[in-house]
Amino acid sequence: MNQFGPSFSFLGVPSCDLAALPDADVVILGAPYDGGTSHRPGTRFGPQAIRQACYLPQDGSRPSLAMGVDALKDLRVFDAGDVEMYAPESTASLQRLEDAVFAVADAGAIPVVLGGDHTIAWPDATGVARKLGYGRVSMVHFDAHADTGDTEYGSLVGHGQPMRRLIESGALRGDRFLQLGLRGYWPEPQTLDWMAGQGLRSYEMTEIVARGLDECLTEAFAIATDECDGVFLSVDVDVVDPGMAPGTGTPEPGGLTSRQLLDAVRRCCYELPIVGVDVVEVAPPYDHAEITAFLANRVVLEALSAIARRRRGDPWDPRRPLLDGR
Amino acid sequence: MNQFGPSFSFLGVPSCDLAALPDADVVILGAPYDGGTSHRPGTRFGPQAIRQACYLPQDGSRPSLAMGVDALKDLRVFDAGDVEMYAPESTASLQRLEDAVFAVADAGAIPVVLGGDHTIAWPDATGVARKLGYGRVSMVHFDAHADTGDTEYGSLVGHGQPMRRLIESGALRGDRFLQLGLRGYWPEPQTLDWMAGQGLRSYEMTEIVARGLDECLTEAFAIATDECDGVFLSVDVDVVDPGMAPGTGTPEPGGLTSRQLLDAVRRCCYELPIVGVDVVEVAPPYDHAEITAFLANRVVLEALSAIARRRRGDPWDPRRPLLDGR
Amino acid sequence: MNQFGPSFSFLGVPSCDLAALPDADVVILGAPYDGGTSHRPGTRFGPQAIRQACYLPQDGSRPSLAMGVDALKDLRVFDAGDVEMYAPESTASLQRLEDAVFAVADAGAIPVVLGGDHTIAWPDATGVARKLGYGRVSMVHFDAHADTGDTEYGSLVGHGQPMRRLIESGALRGDRFLQLGLRGYWPEPQTLDWMAGQGLRSYEMTEIVARGLDECLTEAFAIATDECDGVFLSVDVDVVDPGMAPGTGTPEPGGLTSRQLLDAVRRCCYELPIVGVDVVEVAPPYDHAEITAFLANRVVLEALSAIARRRRGDPWDPRRPLLDGR
Amino acid sequence: MNQFGPSFSFLGVPSCDLAALPDADVVILGAPYDGGTSHRPGTRFGPQAIRQACYLPQDGSRPSLAMGVDALKDLRVFDAGDVEMYAPESTASLQRLEDAVFAVADAGAIPVVLGGDHTIAWPDATGVARKLGYGRVSMVHFDAHADTGDTEYGSLVGHGQPMRRLIESGALRGDRFLQLGLRGYWPEPQTLDWMAGQGLRSYEMTEIVARGLDECLTEAFAIATDECDGVFLSVDVDVVDPGMAPGTGTPEPGGLTSRQLLDAVRRCCYELPIVGVDVVEVAPPYDHAEITAFLANRVVLEALSAIARRRRGDPWDPRRPLLDGR
Amino acid sequence: MNQFGPSFSFLGVPSCDLAALPDADVVILGAPYDGGTSHRPGTRFGPQAIRQACYLPQDGSRPSLAMGVDALKDLRVFDAGDVEMYAPESTASLQRLEDAVFAVADAGAIPVVLGGDHTIAWPDATGVARKLGYGRVSMVHFDAHADTGDTEYGSLVGHGQPMRRLIESGALRGDRFLQLGLRGYWPEPQTLDWMAGQGLRSYEMTEIVARGLDECLTEAFAIATDECDGVFLSVDVDVVDPGMAPGTGTPEPGGLTSRQLLDAVRRCCYELPIVGVDVVEVAPPYDHAEITAFLANRVVLEALSAIARRRRGDPWDPRRPLLDGR
Amino acid sequence: MNQFGPSFSFLGVPSCDLAALPDADVVILGAPYDGGTSHRPGTRFGPQAIRQACYLPQDGSRPSLAMGVDALKDLRVFDAGDVEMYAPESTASLQRLEDAVFAVADAGAIPVVLGGDHTIAWPDATGVARKLGYGRVSMVHFDAHADTGDTEYGSLVGHGQPMRRLIESGALRGDRFLQLGLRGYWPEPQTLDWMAGQGLRSYEMTEIVARGLDECLTEAFAIATDECDGVFLSVDVDVVDPGMAPGTGTPEPGGLTSRQLLDAVRRCCYELPIVGVDVVEVAPPYDHAEITAFLANRVVLEALSAIARRRRGDPWDPRRPLLDGR
Repeated sequence: MNQFGPSFSFLGVPSCDLAALPDADVVILGAPYDGGTSHRPGTRFGPQAIRQACYLPQDGSRPSLAMGVDALKDLRVFDAGDVEMYAPESTASLQRLEDAVFAVADAGAIPVVLGGDHTIAWPDATGVARKLGYGRVSMVHFDAHADTGDTEYGSLVGHGQPMRRLIESGALRGDRFLQLGLRGYWPEPQTLDWMAGQGLRSYEMTEIVARGLDECLTEAFAIATDECDGVFLSVDVDVVDPGMAPGTGTPEPGGLTSRQLLDAVRRCCYELPIVGVDVVEVAPPYDHAEITAFLANRVVLEALSAIARRRRGDPWDPRRPLLDGR
Repeated sequence: MNQFGPSFSFLGVPSCDLAALPDADVVILGAPYDGGTSHRPGTRFGPQAIRQACYLPQDGSRPSLAMGVDALKDLRVFDAGDVEMYAPESTASLQRLEDAVFAVADAGAIPVVLGGDHTIAWPDATGVARKLGYGRVSMVHFDAHADTGDTEYGSLVGHGQPMRRLIESGALRGDRFLQLGLRGYWPEPQTLDWMAGQGLRSYEMTEIVARGLDECLTEAFAIATDECDGVFLSVDVDVVDPGMAPGTGTPEPGGLTSRQLLDAVRRCCYELPIVGVDVVEVAPPYDHAEITAFLANRVVLEALSAIARRRRGDPWDPRRPLLDGR
Repeated sequence: MNQFGPSFSFLGVPSCDLAALPDADVVILGAPYDGGTSHRPGTRFGPQAIRQACYLPQDGSRPSLAMGVDALKDLRVFDAGDVEMYAPESTASLQRLEDAVFAVADAGAIPVVLGGDHTIAWPDATGVARKLGYGRVSMVHFDAHADTGDTEYGSLVGHGQPMRRLIESGALRGDRFLQLGLRGYWPEPQTLDWMAGQGLRSYEMTEIVARGLDECLTEAFAIATDECDGVFLSVDVDVVDPGMAPGTGTPEPGGLTSRQLLDAVRRCCYELPIVGVDVVEVAPPYDHAEITAFLANRVVLEALSAIARRRRGDPWDPRRPLLDGR
Repeated sequence: MNQFGPSFSFLGVPSCDLAALPDADVVILGAPYDGGTSHRPGTRFGPQAIRQACYLPQDGSRPSLAMGVDALKDLRVFDAGDVEMYAPESTASLQRLEDAVFAVADAGAIPVVLGGDHTIAWPDATGVARKLGYGRVSMVHFDAHADTGDTEYGSLVGHGQPMRRLIESGALRGDRFLQLGLRGYWPEPQTLDWMAGQGLRSYEMTEIVARGLDECLTEAFAIATDECDGVFLSVDVDVVDPGMAPGTGTPEPGGLTSRQLLDAVRRCCYELPIVGVDVVEVAPPYDHAEITAFLANRVVLEALSAIARRRRGDPWDPRRPLLDGR
Repeated sequence: MNQFGPSFSFLGVPSCDLAALPDADVVILGAPYDGGTSHRPGTRFGPQAIRQACYLPQDGSRPSLAMGVDALKDLRVFDAGDVEMYAPESTASLQRLEDAVFAVADAGAIPVVLGGDHTIAWPDATGVARKLGYGRVSMVHFDAHADTGDTEYGSLVGHGQPMRRLIESGALRGDRFLQLGLRGYWPEPQTLDWMAGQGLRSYEMTEIVARGLDECLTEAFAIATDECDGVFLSVDVDVVDPGMAPGTGTPEPGGLTSRQLLDAVRRCCYELPIVGVDVVEVAPPYDHAEITAFLANRVVLEALSAIARRRRGDPWDPRRPLLDGR
Repeated sequence: MNQFGPSFSFLGVPSCDLAALPDADVVILGAPYDGGTSHRPGTRFGPQAIRQACYLPQDGSRPSLAMGVDALKDLRVFDAGDVEMYAPESTASLQRLEDAVFAVADAGAIPVVLGGDHTIAWPDATGVARKLGYGRVSMVHFDAHADTGDTEYGSLVGHGQPMRRLIESGALRGDRFLQLGLRGYWPEPQTLDWMAGQGLRSYEMTEIVARGLDECLTEAFAIATDECDGVFLSVDVDVVDPGMAPGTGTPEPGGLTSRQLLDAVRRCCYELPIVGVDVVEVAPPYDHAEITAFLANRVVLEALSAIARRRRGDPWDPRRPLLDGR
């Protein structure tokens, strides 16, 4: 059951029940939580928007032109619906989400969580770490913001703090935490000091522009795969420029293009051993013509397609013409 | 300090500090809480939107054509800014609001609370009842919804339950609870039974259309002023038809016109001993051209103008030409 | 299967298969056809928008405050999904719709068709007439437009002509054709002459304002129930003023209020032997905050609730207080 | 030539040249001036929006269902395009407009001016008075605002002052000035005193609601036709409630419905000797789905249709069924 | 005559009549057809939107800073208005368009067709091939989608199939078909196989990013000019990222920037012997602030400017400063 | 006092009074003037939008990740509110603005003016030149348009002419005038000739794409710092592509990305001796989700941060990792 609106699955993949998980490669979860947002709310409608933002039939098939796979067919992908989340009951809600993610990971599948605000990265990555071991999972984190704040309005819960919680609890190691796309005017110096002390590697947009995103990614991947059993990919859609992804709560101008994000997500999922994914901060009330939801939908598909291609094992060349070899 | 965006006061009235309240007739409070909404969020931006939704200078003066008073001048009106509210800390947030409302009432002023979702009616009316005595305050409640639900996602907190909480706690009497504008498909029968058991008088739109709003109001006022020391007026902007007030979270077609609401609020505040007001459920992300915010701003002004005219004491005739007697 | 977007049913009622209809009182059909619109398209997304436009859970239950019934429970209501319709194959598409409506009627259920543009009234009412007999079904038609045009861009198919087709074919009798809400500057005199020649009774808004909607309805009902076996109710959402229902293709200022339409639909379905319903011309691309879709959803619920109450048989008094008798 | 965007005429009526006016009953002028607005600009795009806001062919024909005339055919209606207006050259721009209106009036036609902000009423009515005589023209003025302010930002020019200018100059008599629909919190008492001193008759919405619009109109018409040679009709679209006419600069909640305005305009033009019309304050940037532009277009058509019917001379009964007599 | 809304020409160029074509270099045609769209409709309003989307006077002059020509003056450019198209009469409508395009080509002018959905490329390119010879025209096709599907809802007509139709009919050669900008999850493998079998050269975005757009264009131009008498340029605005061109029906994230498209169109028209152009899939109902329409307008101007510069014959250097040589 | 809406300062920096300026490094001024716009108005609301467009607290602190400074703290930044501007009194309004800017410059602070349309660059740069000497200030001008027109609707005042006025008056030297981002179809050749004659160096987008923005900037900076005492930076937000900055009056497709503009502004303010800044042409009525206002807010912050870093004096390396050295 989806929490807001009618119940249906991501692009028509089979639904499943968390209490009786099928043999799956990937299980999609909705996390319609926007209680932790510090500014514009609305991400509670993110899961529904992302699930359906497509002009093609909702038929559980999406053959990727670029990767030459049909991830929704080649992988066993299910949608377990939404975890019920309610802001005045945040603690219980986040625990339910963590348990759901753990259940998916424990069943051997990759959880793909559709947010919701970025608060959910805390239970998302914790749930995976409960399965793979605290400190055994690296994080690749696309975002305009570091999300390493201490508290928000006096609370440990909030979309500006999940990464702090994950490192403080030991679920993730600070020195296997790769952040890409940061920019703007937050956090303040003492939080940057804390981040430095924890060994995070944070690529601000200035560095990305100066060195090139691909070089930064290659460097980050080397860190991410050092002494780790898997990588969690957390994509905050606000890493993209607000001009191209307006439907979000805390837009920071000067971000990546949609194309850059899709290519970067592809590289992550093709080159790294992904064990969990979340795509967060899509706020439909601020979107226009669903363009941000479409982008998030494609981020999910790009991730799944690259995972499927990685599993197929044959080499992939981005320069190869589309119709070559047919 | 206002919680979201810059700090400024309602239409430029003087600001004040809750900790050191001035001699005031009316103190405006912002309650930017949308943690309790069951559907579309966004009312956290309501207080800011309502404060400024006007095309006239923000100069702390609004001479009413209809009432012949300048409420912002004739009354001592101050704006104490927002009470800080954060959904994951709902209990503490609502307590802060209740304390703020009590402080205003205790200082002898009428609290006018700008929501926020309707959850805030619980602390709003409780704060007033703490001053005037539990069971001594009647409620006149304009709304599409009864807001008498038991729980929401397992929580006692929520915008569908404040009226239940107020009656259960004894802060307000069920048989001095007047509801106007109800319609649609909620709540379910057992809640209606509970309402009947508590003695509420609820005017569904069908009755209002059949009998006329003015007749219903007159009848309701008689109940409201029986054995009571004051009346709390709670206006959910969704009592107006969504076509005229789209910027709200749970729109129910078939409501009052804006004109009807303004006239009804005027009658309430001119004919009844108002001791507290809240105006709730303005959700700017869903508004168009600020029309819902403009309406809520005028609901506040209409209330204040009628209070001012009531205090002036001379008779008022709605049929009198505007320029007569000048 | 729904044609556009994910598959789900009207507010969560059970789905059914046209090829194997269950015992039903009402079967909902989507008719996502906007090929016949002469101006703004977009009603293809109407069925999906109407099905889900509600802030309450999609749980197949909607207890009406006004009517004291839960139509979705008290009646056996199913949703058979969309009939596939594609504008370049209009003839085949409309035939498929007519067959579907006939199948529902033939199974003894009331078809409720969610449009789509008004072209679909042709197959809708024809499908019912095929069951009940040509000339045996009256039409009550709420609309800003008479929809009795001859051709549109040289075609017999179009949203301005369905009523002409229905009368020409004999499916419906012109002198049992009741139109309410007409206004504006169309059709031209020769079409009005044709309408007069066929005996239509068309209530232009001027007459409705001058005489009152209730008086007009009472008069119309007398005609509609004279020598007929059932009444088809066709509601074009543009009968409501564009200010309250902007999401439509051919908006004509000066219409009914939402409240008036809901009350009128209630009277129709409570006082008349309804055998078919369609609700058309909701164009989501032009809607704001879903208000037009919400209205159309409530038109459907109002119709079903009144049908359920009519079937229950006990008297209904619009002046009775909501909580009386509990 | 139209000033903004492509050149085309009101609904396809013939174009004409101000310098060589044809024999005409009505000449339409665009006045794309928004330099005088005190809040939201955008009315410069009003003339273009009003000219084309219709879903019917732009064919210079609009047979009115209600009035039984085709004003665009029955009258000789031309569109002379826009008068060039530029805010930093306000004095020259307003003079050009006055001259254009005078030219039309002098040629024996009724000028119908499409605004533009309400500043233009000053040159509009002056242009007519230059022809008919200062003090010989009454004004019927639909508006939320009296527009009788003294200065705006130190300037005599502005959309809040045209009525003051007209009375001060003697073009119009204050005691033949009828205002309908006023409401809200402007102007301040000293301006009301000035208005009373000049003998204006201003119907605030409270009086209109209490007495009924039709009674107020009848009373106003008696004044308007006393010692006058013609009536100028000035319609500010903000007289309608912002919920139904959001596309305007200074929205004041609690206005007329669209239906009320259309009926009132019809009565004015059917019962009074109209010598000039302007329709102002349509601000497309704030409109949604063109609903305000559609309304203004229909205000023009309603006015022209009633003028045409008045000229035809046969009696008109609003209660007569649409198809009667065909 | 334009089909929807008032009649006016592209940026004020002279109008012409298809039945009596003047000596022209370029003739613009509107093709307001959205019957073939598989998802969001609205492109019927594309021609009108594209014609007028400009902030400069509609004066038939547009001196290009970049190319140093005023194409609307240097070339003889006319606008023949819209071809009437109506979805339920698709076959006849598309034939009318093909005949119109042929008429223009036959008169020696370049047809520039403003869509409309991409269905129209079928008649557009066929009309040109009828003049120049089947198989004698190459295609350069900018699009997110290959548009080589077999059928849509059982129909040969549709915006996903025009390129298949053109190759199947022999109008165009598959091995002179250059596609740029493809991406996403459509078409499925068997269609890709068909494309490969026909010899299409399709540049997916991955290849474009990896190799650079300019290198891909250079390679494509070599193919396009091999054994051909002219090149048809078909620009689907959805080749641009939806973040920059939201007003379209089937948005696929990850596209070109607006800048890239304009530069690419310029190169096509400066370096290739263009014999026909269409610009399609602008859907105004989904646009914001006309930005997609502005882009399409500039695509047309960029094409015309480059054609004009090519005809002038002197060398053009993109690195030359704007004011050099003046 | 701000002219439109409530009074508050840029992101909460201290307010100040023009008549009694404090010791300041930077003084912000609002110039809510849109009287000079040739197309879409609305920039009068620019200053208010830019001041508050941020999701962080309005606390007068913005520590830049990229530059390692907190400009609002490290510099003494004040906001002097709006200069009152009214279009029908353009001459007086522009003079007031010039005097205000001069007062700021004369007090030794850098004026940062928030527009308003680009007309204001005339008084802005003149005010600075009055202090530093006519001809002693260079201009770096980011814009899609040259703004060197002669007159607009016969007036010297207008947003297409300020640069002409500045050079004609001698306030600025034509040969120290650097324009970046020009494109499109304006101005016409004779104005280009005038520009060439004055020695302007204008980088059209074609040259910028061909040579790279950084190379162009380096070249421009060399000219700007030759024989000059300071540089005025004028940023028209329409230099960015309309897809990323839709909220503007005269959008020209094919512009810079937001990222490019932010980086370029940073370079200007870090490498050049900036003596004045304006950020203009933000038109909130055409914005979506405030993205253009957010961008303009960040342009201001980027400028201030780079100025602060330049003043700190230590070297800055864009390739240095964010957390290095902590």
